[in-house]
Amino acid sequence: MQAINLADKLATFEGHWQPRVVGQFNGHDLMVVKVKGEFVWHTHENTDDFFLVLKGRITIRMREGDVALGPGELFVVPKGTEHCPVAEEEAHLLLIEPVGTPNTGNAATAAPRRVL
Amino acid sequence: MQAINLADKLATFEGHWQPRVVGQFNGHDLMVVKVKGEFVWHTHENTDDFFLVLKGRITIRMREGDVALGPGELFVVPKGTEHCPVAEEEAHLLLIEPVGTPNTGNAATAAPRRVL
Repeated sequence: MQAINLADKLATFEGHWQPRVVGQFNGHDLMVVKVKGEFVWHTHENTDDFFLVLKGRITIRMREGDVALGPGELFVVPKGTEHCPVAEEEAHLLLIEPVGTPNTGNAATAAPRRVL
Repeated sequence: MQAINLADKLATFEGHWQPRVVGQFNGHDLMVVKVKGEFVWHTHENTDDFFLVLKGRITIRMREGDVALGPGELFVVPKGTEHCPVAEEEAHLLLIEPVGTPNTGNAATAAPRRVL
């Protein structure tokens, strides 16, 4: 039973697009991730996708239009919506997804779900 | 489809312990709330309770011990765990709870679920 300090957790690892699980909530993983560059276009057919920017800026590209996010801004990609996150400079995010969700939408190409 | 700026949402209202819904995620409400003083001891029997501090400091009192949280720190109160949030000075939080969860654990005493 202790506080989870997101900046402290982020300081423990390097590498981009490799989420670390820092807690769980109602069957969801709470994850921090460092991102830079362009991810892959992908879709989660069975879950919304929660993004909260902790540091830096990202753009979530979607076929319907882009959403730009800075620190303290969140966006939920509705399930079934194809999207591609992009960050020109390194950004730090809080992500929430159901336990076991592949980050690319496809288990074959997903990063392993690492726990901090 | 647009970013949700949490500070901007918090600037639109006054009042403590009155969460505002700013978005939804997998059947959960994403809420911002201003808190100050002591809430009531309560339990959510069927859901975990997500707290992320955006500004200020809070303590979540539990029978098992207290957890102190500052900006950028989160804590999930496990379902069925009696707790009482306290803030000496005003603090701003992001909360996540299933849609319709009474904030006191009891529909008769809960604040209405307001949507921003």
